[in-house]
Amino acid sequence: MAVNSSLSDEEIIDKLINKEIKFYRLDELLGDEKKATLLRLKAVEKISKKKFIHINKFTISPKNARPNIENMIGSIQVPLGIAGPVQVCGEYAKGDFFLPIATTEGALTASVNRGCSVINNSEGASVCINKSGQTRSILFKFKNIEKIKTFFQWIDHNFSKLKKVSESKSNFLELISINKFVVGNSVWLRLTADTKDAMGMNMITLAAKTLGEYIESNFTGAEFVSTSGNICMDKKPSALNLAEGRGKSLLAEVFIPNSVVEKYLKTTPEKMVDVNYRKNLLGSALAGSYGFNANFANIAAAIFLATGQDLGHIVDGSHGFTTMELVDDKLHAIVTLSSLQLGTIGGGTNLETQKECLELLGVHGSGDPPGANASKFAEIVAAAVLAGEISLIGALAAKHLVKAHMELNR
Amino acid sequence: MAVNSSLSDEEIIDKLINKEIKFYRLDELLGDEKKATLLRLKAVEKISKKKFIHINKFTISPKNARPNIENMIGSIQVPLGIAGPVQVCGEYAKGDFFLPIATTEGALTASVNRGCSVINNSEGASVCINKSGQTRSILFKFKNIEKIKTFFQWIDHNFSKLKKVSESKSNFLELISINKFVVGNSVWLRLTADTKDAMGMNMITLAAKTLGEYIESNFTGAEFVSTSGNICMDKKPSALNLAEGRGKSLLAEVFIPNSVVEKYLKTTPEKMVDVNYRKNLLGSALAGSYGFNANFANIAAAIFLATGQDLGHIVDGSHGFTTMELVDDKLHAIVTLSSLQLGTIGGGTNLETQKECLELLGVHGSGDPPGANASKFAEIVAAAVLAGEISLIGALAAKHLVKAHMELNR
Amino acid sequence: MAVNSSLSDEEIIDKLINKEIKFYRLDELLGDEKKATLLRLKAVEKISKKKFIHINKFTISPKNARPNIENMIGSIQVPLGIAGPVQVCGEYAKGDFFLPIATTEGALTASVNRGCSVINNSEGASVCINKSGQTRSILFKFKNIEKIKTFFQWIDHNFSKLKKVSESKSNFLELISINKFVVGNSVWLRLTADTKDAMGMNMITLAAKTLGEYIESNFTGAEFVSTSGNICMDKKPSALNLAEGRGKSLLAEVFIPNSVVEKYLKTTPEKMVDVNYRKNLLGSALAGSYGFNANFANIAAAIFLATGQDLGHIVDGSHGFTTMELVDDKLHAIVTLSSLQLGTIGGGTNLETQKECLELLGVHGSGDPPGANASKFAEIVAAAVLAGEISLIGALAAKHLVKAHMELNR
Amino acid sequence: MAVNSSLSDEEIIDKLINKEIKFYRLDELLGDEKKATLLRLKAVEKISKKKFIHINKFTISPKNARPNIENMIGSIQVPLGIAGPVQVCGEYAKGDFFLPIATTEGALTASVNRGCSVINNSEGASVCINKSGQTRSILFKFKNIEKIKTFFQWIDHNFSKLKKVSESKSNFLELISINKFVVGNSVWLRLTADTKDAMGMNMITLAAKTLGEYIESNFTGAEFVSTSGNICMDKKPSALNLAEGRGKSLLAEVFIPNSVVEKYLKTTPEKMVDVNYRKNLLGSALAGSYGFNANFANIAAAIFLATGQDLGHIVDGSHGFTTMELVDDKLHAIVTLSSLQLGTIGGGTNLETQKECLELLGVHGSGDPPGANASKFAEIVAAAVLAGEISLIGALAAKHLVKAHMELNR
Repeated sequence: MAVNSSLSDEEIIDKLINKEIKFYRLDELLGDEKKATLLRLKAVEKISKKKFIHINKFTISPKNARPNIENMIGSIQVPLGIAGPVQVCGEYAKGDFFLPIATTEGALTASVNRGCSVINNSEGASVCINKSGQTRSILFKFKNIEKIKTFFQWIDHNFSKLKKVSESKSNFLELISINKFVVGNSVWLRLTADTKDAMGMNMITLAAKTLGEYIESNFTGAEFVSTSGNICMDKKPSALNLAEGRGKSLLAEVFIPNSVVEKYLKTTPEKMVDVNYRKNLLGSALAGSYGFNANFANIAAAIFLATGQDLGHIVDGSHGFTTMELVDDKLHAIVTLSSLQLGTIGGGTNLETQKECLELLGVHGSGDPPGANASKFAEIVAAAVLAGEISLIGALAAKHLVKAHMELNR
Repeated sequence: MAVNSSLSDEEIIDKLINKEIKFYRLDELLGDEKKATLLRLKAVEKISKKKFIHINKFTISPKNARPNIENMIGSIQVPLGIAGPVQVCGEYAKGDFFLPIATTEGALTASVNRGCSVINNSEGASVCINKSGQTRSILFKFKNIEKIKTFFQWIDHNFSKLKKVSESKSNFLELISINKFVVGNSVWLRLTADTKDAMGMNMITLAAKTLGEYIESNFTGAEFVSTSGNICMDKKPSALNLAEGRGKSLLAEVFIPNSVVEKYLKTTPEKMVDVNYRKNLLGSALAGSYGFNANFANIAAAIFLATGQDLGHIVDGSHGFTTMELVDDKLHAIVTLSSLQLGTIGGGTNLETQKECLELLGVHGSGDPPGANASKFAEIVAAAVLAGEISLIGALAAKHLVKAHMELNR
Repeated sequence: MAVNSSLSDEEIIDKLINKEIKFYRLDELLGDEKKATLLRLKAVEKISKKKFIHINKFTISPKNARPNIENMIGSIQVPLGIAGPVQVCGEYAKGDFFLPIATTEGALTASVNRGCSVINNSEGASVCINKSGQTRSILFKFKNIEKIKTFFQWIDHNFSKLKKVSESKSNFLELISINKFVVGNSVWLRLTADTKDAMGMNMITLAAKTLGEYIESNFTGAEFVSTSGNICMDKKPSALNLAEGRGKSLLAEVFIPNSVVEKYLKTTPEKMVDVNYRKNLLGSALAGSYGFNANFANIAAAIFLATGQDLGHIVDGSHGFTTMELVDDKLHAIVTLSSLQLGTIGGGTNLETQKECLELLGVHGSGDPPGANASKFAEIVAAAVLAGEISLIGALAAKHLVKAHMELNR
Repeated sequence: MAVNSSLSDEEIIDKLINKEIKFYRLDELLGDEKKATLLRLKAVEKISKKKFIHINKFTISPKNARPNIENMIGSIQVPLGIAGPVQVCGEYAKGDFFLPIATTEGALTASVNRGCSVINNSEGASVCINKSGQTRSILFKFKNIEKIKTFFQWIDHNFSKLKKVSESKSNFLELISINKFVVGNSVWLRLTADTKDAMGMNMITLAAKTLGEYIESNFTGAEFVSTSGNICMDKKPSALNLAEGRGKSLLAEVFIPNSVVEKYLKTTPEKMVDVNYRKNLLGSALAGSYGFNANFANIAAAIFLATGQDLGHIVDGSHGFTTMELVDDKLHAIVTLSSLQLGTIGGGTNLETQKECLELLGVHGSGDPPGANASKFAEIVAAAVLAGEISLIGALAAKHLVKAHMELNR
């Protein structure tokens, strides 16, 4: 149905309300995303008998946001703070980087900022990526267990063919490996792929679907049940992701002199080591956690939000370890990030404000070579996470966590 | 140091750059958060040699955002979509509710919306809260194990006194219980408290600190190590949270007639039960996950972002189960949310756009009685999560997940 | 069918083979367990065309073993070693105790023995029980979620009545608490009870069944599905058991002077702390383990076998922590046993050889007061586990683990 | 010190008591293990002022048991029951097998036996091994993270050399793979090897030590910390073992006609599916378990004990899944065993009674080709575990679990 050009805004709103026009079709019908956004909001106001004067005051382009949202009615604004710069020495990220922190959690920006000061006064953070690869698991069902072993052998023997099939729908994706899992008559193939600068879930999901259909057609007895079988494991806690990694797996470290700990954190390395050991290791262990850290999730959340990442991946970002040791009168602090999911193209990276934050980091868009931007970005995030951990463990050791939160947040 | 009123903007920017003025002190020095925000951005531009023309186009008030951010330089805008309304029958939420979905993940709003249609055509979602209580664990150290048993007995015997102490710094917080944990000479007390309409982490952290100091002063041998000991367990995966709950623990269910499954989801109840069983139960089990679901995190993320919640709690929100069974020719779908953390006061709930989203749900601010708004909000979120799960499992069972993402997102 | 007294042994064996007489009925038919055992073995020999000349050389009484075995055909003999004595200072166990070690794993007895020497030369092991209570979870199903909240309230309000019902079939069992869990429309009640000197699974299973039937009859809508619902959690890895404990939860510690470490373990406290930290904490954490220790299971296995315990509980016994810290030039080693299941009555405790091992420890049969023997036994086991951990971590730190095993085992 | 041949038994006993002769040296000094065993027992009797008349009535040879025990004082006798035969159709095990069940848990043998009847009346159990390989993880420490990435590359590039080194100390062991893990500056290499018919922990531990020392010498910066780093993961709960497998990973299945369920289990397939789903999947999931089954551990324990396996591996054996589905009016039951550790040579397999049980199964000693016996043994155990699960879930569904235990056990 085309919208009759003679319809007034009020008439369109009424048609939205009585469902003659479906919300989601309006953009197309009007050929004007901005107007569609505003008319939908009006319809929502009328139905809910409420007035909204802020969510419609956006400056981003609804047309530009089409890949990111349906039924757009406006925009949420989240305050953006700046932390750092932080001094990073990675394979891809070298130099000083400001950190864009989008959050509503008072004290968080200040905390990261304090951590950056500590790092900068300690010769900077060293960072490295140990493993990289996005994953998706496809799920099959067998009538009985008889052919499962043969199936696994078939998968191994045909890897190069399967690789080609899975790469056939993308110019970027490179299949790295296929791991095999089984429970009863359910079988999973966990695909790992290089998705270059993209976080890559869409890319690998398409590859997974293509491969799943190919396998179903080519191996008798393998019924293709689902494109995702939760061994991936996407946006959910996972021991497998902790141990085997997913997306980018990184390490970031700093050696902090005693004097720096005392000056900036008002505590001692000994106390920080003790708090970290009892809280982040013993406490997390007892709670059955995969987050042997204090607040990886906070830093992931703030930078992900600022840069247009998928916020569901804050879950993956919460996995990992903060370890602290005393070495030659210095505090040796390391963060181990198991499964950082991020990209510099795709997702929300082209939204106006998000794009600017990526540009601030010097990582917007495709890298040269492809993948270099996402790797650089990951290294910066790892340094930021290190800063966040140092600051929070320092605060707990100095017992002024609450004070900071109280002054700033309530 | 007061900023000399005669200083030009350029002069201030230069002082920011050469660190004569610290970024975070500028709001106070100028007495004008908006100007401070803009000047900081200018300084960042100058240092980074970049131009930012979008992040400074915010309409929210930096003054209003003071509790939420430090070193503000602008705002991130995230597109806001609308899903629903969804028909909810809870103890607190009764009726039809539009769902504000702030996301950059294409297809998510459409997916939730589709789930809402399914629910509405199936007599709505029933929701109930089984457990409610925010938690924080305080961490102590003992010289040896000798006094730990006595300590635990002392805690039990003095519960009413400890309750009073922990409640002394808040008008709202009510201590519900103290659970005791031990590893070696480290001891944790996991406090659970009713924090009414607030998500309550700040509130309970203050209570925890107060109680920790009191205990250290009153029980010889208990050295107070940290206000948070990671048995809480905040923003990290946790078996304990999955089993025992944290924040709000809810159930939401719907009985979907076969015909509705076929019409809206283009698949069958049998296939959905099968996909859910193999993916959400077996797959998650094998991956060592606490997320026996498909995408709780996505829905939590989108609504949390829209309503000013702490995004780190997306991690907690990812814990729980989606179960599906066939009952009398209907699909009986239930979501079990283990640890939903949210509030209608505090945090980012007073930011202009976020506040409007809460108002859309009819839950902004303090409830009557206190706590009623947060409970109502939680029930709506649970229904939204149910909608998201039904839609995604339906899409996987119908094998058009990728198609939806591809059309909308790339 | 009675066995005709005129039947020869050969005739009986033939009837066993051609299934005219069922194996399990023979004891009753003959009224002679020993003869039944031997004839069954003969039948097995004839069917399998093999000769067995060792498994029938037992000296324990098949009549006495009736509660422990069906279809008895003989006995397995496992070598029994002796370790210690170890000096224990607990609430129940005070003094020096020899440790009966039944194992086929070369070097294990020697290793425990070495640990005992270290403990004895360090003023002994302090032990305490922090928590005690056997558990069983009963499982219910509801048609929908509507009545679950009411059900939980009903459980709480009727606790004293439910306690009485659950205690009605035993002279010993005392119900301590009922914990409530839910996933979808499945509901678990985890019962915790004091079962005195018995390990207590049979006792609490009977209580659970009685209570389940009572609840089904008295709460409309609660369908009693299973006497055990795996929240118990019996003989399987469990985060819940690690955190909340099951059976007996204990701590055992020792402060080992540097000189003792060097003399007996040929290494240093520093190295042991380092190995323990990286292996038992970091390694176990990364592997998603609930066993933050080196070999709890070995010691539990050996003593359980020697004393007639249920060997499935070696799984529960593997849960827990070994922590090591340097304190004032001493190595402070602590083991935290989360869920030790054991008893001094029932199970295999009355078998002749097992009984003697319990007598060696001074804990056979019912204690005075009831429960005292099981508590004393648990304390001794905790000290033995501590010995085993010290020795193994010491060996790893000194790098002669393999050597020990090689010399002794192959 | 040699024992003067003129010493009387009493004099030797006195010297043992006053520690002039150490317990563990007596075998060597006397050159007579049997006498040493008896004299040690006498010494223990005298010290403990107790009499032991059963543990010394063993018939196994202390000389033969030398690799298995130190400080031997006697033997534990455990009643041995017989279950089955069970009809197995595996790759290695084909035919009917009696199952040796050594246990003190009443009703267990009967339960397994009942399961065997169900299997035999349902065309037998199909079994297959999906994965096979013993593991050990060696642990290194680095000064900082700088060289870890290089180290990992070095490992990959030198795999064939490292394989040779690790295989240099054994005629059997074949290294299959090296998996790399990292937390902070701690690095693990998880070795997987084919150890043929041996369970293989000693073999692979020696390989691990050899390899660790080689690497330390050949890669500057890698400090070899421990021969075992708990990523192995041996005798402790482990998400990694559940997902990736360890030792033998197997599937065993049976399709049980309705009529067989009703006749032998007195319940219905529907009820069994329901109990299995709620208990073994949902219950275990909520408890944070890796044992999605009812009683794998019981069956592993009983057969391991009967056949001289390492009882600590009951922990590993408890990992895995029982799944049940309705297919064409049949109950399709499958067990997935993640990490079954067993062997037919080494360990306790040469003890007289244990050897006979292996012979009963037709798997004692080295197979032809090497590894065939262990594989056959594993397949039989998997079928036995399947029998145990069917019987127990059946009993729970029929609600007569307690009755069985009560009649038989107390």
